[in-house]
Amino acid sequence: MEDKWLVGVDLGGTTIKLAFISMYGEILHKWEIPTNISESGKHITLDIAKAIDKKLHELGEMKQRLLGIGMGAPGPVDLTTGVIYEAINLGWKNYPLKDLLEVETGLPVIVDNDANIAALGEMWKGAGEGAKDLVCVTLGTGVGGGVIANGEIVHGVSGAAGEIGHITVVPHGGAPCNCGKTGCLETVASATGIARLAREALAKSEESQLSQLEMVTSKDVFEAAEADALAKQVVEEMASYLGLAIANISNIMNPEKVVIGGGVSKAGDALLNPVQRYFEQYAFSRVAKSTKLAIATLGNDAGVIGGAWLVKTKIGQH
Amino acid sequence: MEDKWLVGVDLGGTTIKLAFISMYGEILHKWEIPTNISESGKHITLDIAKAIDKKLHELGEMKQRLLGIGMGAPGPVDLTTGVIYEAINLGWKNYPLKDLLEVETGLPVIVDNDANIAALGEMWKGAGEGAKDLVCVTLGTGVGGGVIANGEIVHGVSGAAGEIGHITVVPHGGAPCNCGKTGCLETVASATGIARLAREALAKSEESQLSQLEMVTSKDVFEAAEADALAKQVVEEMASYLGLAIANISNIMNPEKVVIGGGVSKAGDALLNPVQRYFEQYAFSRVAKSTKLAIATLGNDAGVIGGAWLVKTKIGQH
Repeated sequence: MEDKWLVGVDLGGTTIKLAFISMYGEILHKWEIPTNISESGKHITLDIAKAIDKKLHELGEMKQRLLGIGMGAPGPVDLTTGVIYEAINLGWKNYPLKDLLEVETGLPVIVDNDANIAALGEMWKGAGEGAKDLVCVTLGTGVGGGVIANGEIVHGVSGAAGEIGHITVVPHGGAPCNCGKTGCLETVASATGIARLAREALAKSEESQLSQLEMVTSKDVFEAAEADALAKQVVEEMASYLGLAIANISNIMNPEKVVIGGGVSKAGDALLNPVQRYFEQYAFSRVAKSTKLAIATLGNDAGVIGGAWLVKTKIGQH
Repeated sequence: MEDKWLVGVDLGGTTIKLAFISMYGEILHKWEIPTNISESGKHITLDIAKAIDKKLHELGEMKQRLLGIGMGAPGPVDLTTGVIYEAINLGWKNYPLKDLLEVETGLPVIVDNDANIAALGEMWKGAGEGAKDLVCVTLGTGVGGGVIANGEIVHGVSGAAGEIGHITVVPHGGAPCNCGKTGCLETVASATGIARLAREALAKSEESQLSQLEMVTSKDVFEAAEADALAKQVVEEMASYLGLAIANISNIMNPEKVVIGGGVSKAGDALLNPVQRYFEQYAFSRVAKSTKLAIATLGNDAGVIGGAWLVKTKIGQH
């Protein structure tokens, strides 16, 4: 069993990340293929099966080397059947991903939501450092989340647990969110949300180096924040909302770690320090002392490593 | 095994509730003794041991009839050791409750926080109806909570999970809370919080039947709300905060049920209906459709039934 390989697959809207991973979580081989979303994503499972076979052939390995496939998909998942309820970017609706991929590959497949498997990856090999109670917040174009309690992903009754991006942080007069509500965390803490806050601040005052840019990005805001008062104020505003949301999550779960990942997290301490400050202000004292905040360390590898963890723990132990 | 009895104990600041419960969760015998908090609560474990022996004697039963004791205590608990970190009302600090009670009774003992065992009780025999993902919110003098995910209580890294009363719902200018923060849910949704909101409203306007009362209680507010505009507005305010908090909890956990208990929950639909309305406004659409809100049904029995569940599942299966 020790020399078996785990296959991690992280399915995104533009690329599919694949990796062969050892039973100890070491990435042995990792590669990407483009996501073919034509014809409502009907080619995706066959593309994955072919990519795995081709890589095995290149490496001179047999399929028996592989224990199974653990895969993250961009949408809510029915865990018992491996059906994707909906993945808007791929054109899938009630799509039997697990069954189709098992037929194409001849391997056992386990499927979960992409934010959840990223959380498992960070738990196993990343900033989570083995913490059995862990929450991941992913700040990208949107805001996603994965929640692990007692070492297991929390899915909830309809697979919608971990919708951290849709925690309401502006109950009155918040900006509209893609989900149909207003004032969601996503509207103020995603890359697009931060850019919007900056545009709103610039509409009130041009006294900022950001006013010279044609299009302000979240990255620009964090880079300017040290020297620029307006940029600093935008970071403070974003951090107060994110710190509030993380404090409230932590008052409910008291996780060992809250790991902040996604593109926005590349700001590092410029993000973490103000968020930590607001977290301490809003968290219950015992929670503020015991729950630690950290920046994710695995980057784009979190998904494939989390997928491998699922194979190891859910398939490898039968 | 089927004819063994489970002992549930719910330790409060004024009374200790005890019950002998069947393996199927039926309460066979239930009684109370006063809580002796003199000398830093040092007599409590012996009092419990004597009460159990006395009841067995009355019933003509032997101690072998009892499988073990499951007990809730009013404070955070170290699960592995059964030590109560702190129970302010009892004068306990780092108190080895499990060990002492096992010595006094000769029975295996399992200890957890009182809000957590109440949640287990509601899961097993109450409004939870067996839901494996369940959150209980207890609205009493304070606001407590118990969180169950994948059928297990979520304790968190330092036993402070479920501190639902200290979710910040008024980030700016909120009232001071006993915990040292401001704007906690407890300051606006506990019995004392509701009374405070009513006093504040009455200080601005006396046009209310509540202004004739010497001291307004939470019960008065709910009873007056149908006919009295000021009382109705206080209920709306409270419900908006509670609905927001429950929506945000549900966006994180997507539980099958959120069960609202405690003295304030006796208001029934007068509480549940406005809270449901704000919950739907603030919850992610998929969560609003799948997570159900309900009033607790076990009342004061939730604790002893939850304690019995712990014995059945944690001791009965060894």
